[in-house]
Amino acid sequence: MKNFKKKELSKKWFKLLRNQIINEFEKIENQNISKKLKFKKKKWKRKPHLKKDNGGGQMAILYGNIFEKVGVNISTVYGSLSHDFKKNLPGTNKNSNFWASGISVVAHMQNPYLPSFHFNTRMIETSKIWFGGGMDMTPTFKNSKHKKMFHSNIKNMCDKHNKNYYKDFSKYCDEYFYLPHRREARGDGGIFYDYLDSSSWEGDFNFTKDVGSCFLDVVSRIISMDMSKKWKKEHKEQQKIKRGRYAEFNLLYDRGTKFGLQTDGNIDAILMSMPPEAKWI
Amino acid sequence: MKNFKKKELSKKWFKLLRNQIINEFEKIENQNISKKLKFKKKKWKRKPHLKKDNGGGQMAILYGNIFEKVGVNISTVYGSLSHDFKKNLPGTNKNSNFWASGISVVAHMQNPYLPSFHFNTRMIETSKIWFGGGMDMTPTFKNSKHKKMFHSNIKNMCDKHNKNYYKDFSKYCDEYFYLPHRREARGDGGIFYDYLDSSSWEGDFNFTKDVGSCFLDVVSRIISMDMSKKWKKEHKEQQKIKRGRYAEFNLLYDRGTKFGLQTDGNIDAILMSMPPEAKWI
Repeated sequence: MKNFKKKELSKKWFKLLRNQIINEFEKIENQNISKKLKFKKKKWKRKPHLKKDNGGGQMAILYGNIFEKVGVNISTVYGSLSHDFKKNLPGTNKNSNFWASGISVVAHMQNPYLPSFHFNTRMIETSKIWFGGGMDMTPTFKNSKHKKMFHSNIKNMCDKHNKNYYKDFSKYCDEYFYLPHRREARGDGGIFYDYLDSSSWEGDFNFTKDVGSCFLDVVSRIISMDMSKKWKKEHKEQQKIKRGRYAEFNLLYDRGTKFGLQTDGNIDAILMSMPPEAKWI
Repeated sequence: MKNFKKKELSKKWFKLLRNQIINEFEKIENQNISKKLKFKKKKWKRKPHLKKDNGGGQMAILYGNIFEKVGVNISTVYGSLSHDFKKNLPGTNKNSNFWASGISVVAHMQNPYLPSFHFNTRMIETSKIWFGGGMDMTPTFKNSKHKKMFHSNIKNMCDKHNKNYYKDFSKYCDEYFYLPHRREARGDGGIFYDYLDSSSWEGDFNFTKDVGSCFLDVVSRIISMDMSKKWKKEHKEQQKIKRGRYAEFNLLYDRGTKFGLQTDGNIDAILMSMPPEAKWI
């Protein structure tokens, strides 16, 4: 398959998945209320001050009663990488052109008994082509039922593609979502993969599609399971403190955040992952 | 003067100033209430898992009705610098020993019409000895009266020591407290200096003492001026959003935070500067 076709297909998928996620999350948000809430969408262009087209994206954000703040972003960006940044991406030795398309979701829930969820997948083209992404969840209060459901669904999905994927990618996730200054994990893990470029582009693409569908399915089920659970003000306070750790991770360590801030990305889209309210005591 | 005497004098000053600040802030906090609030103090040791004495410090924190969260920390730490960290400190070519003593204050105010205040001063000894520190303030809503009072007091104090200090150090402050990803200043500036090692240690020490006294004086006056000003919930929301920027600065750029996190500092003391509540929309 030609590269332009691969790009077309992946970009199309990320948009389709975005629509599926938005529809499903709106359904969850609106099932018990008469005044329906909708995601607000906003388009943005990369480097709008330049005449050249550098791509852009579309943010979608919802502030609701179930989802305190959930953002679903898609973007397709391209152009030439800065010298400093080339070392971070394979396949840029001879040519500094890149193309990247992806989807990214962060959901901070009202109910402190529900974890926050994070997911993204992307395809990147330099002189190589590869996929990356993953999903993880961050509870305020440990819940073994949620954790088991999350991981077993992910494992089943992974096993259909490659028996090593779950082991390798969940390990990578645990290593990545770690706060060294606090010597603590960000949350309950999940999977994370990068530079996925096996012998079959179709296989890697199908895996990336399944990661997205699995995320939507398992997260919807965990939310539906406990969205009506009663909580008190002190539980909300605990959630805000946990979110402080989330903010620390994103600003101190997250590669995506750094990548975005250093490459003139859209600030609102990059920092969409930040919690709606955080506390430090 | 011998170095041990310089260290003794500076350490003593930082503690005296800490006591003065605590007394004055408690006076402000308690002037109109019957149930008096006090700073809670907590000692900590650096690298408590090692047998060797590496110094430590004392945190003091107050959650009040005027001061939503104010921390006043002193510390005196010493030992041997890691290889990676030596390049950050002058005078460590032949010898990796260091000694550092200082005071650090961050005040986040309840009233959104009052700015947050930040101050620190320190003396550091390697094979050289120098002073550093400064103060700055970050309003949610522009207030030219506060800004003028803050800067004119600092300038008068600086001018008694060196006619270039205010110009040089306020410029350094503006450059330092800047958020490149948002292309905005953190706040209203102030002064910041480092590696201050003029011909006279006594002169540098006296300047550093005056910076501390000036901070306490001008900040107390700004707070007293507007602490009773009425505000509404939406102003508090604005303050929380501004505090999100403050958190971004501290975690993305602040050298002190990075220094602390990379040198096994006390997490609670390092992150004392974080706002009590922050919002991202």
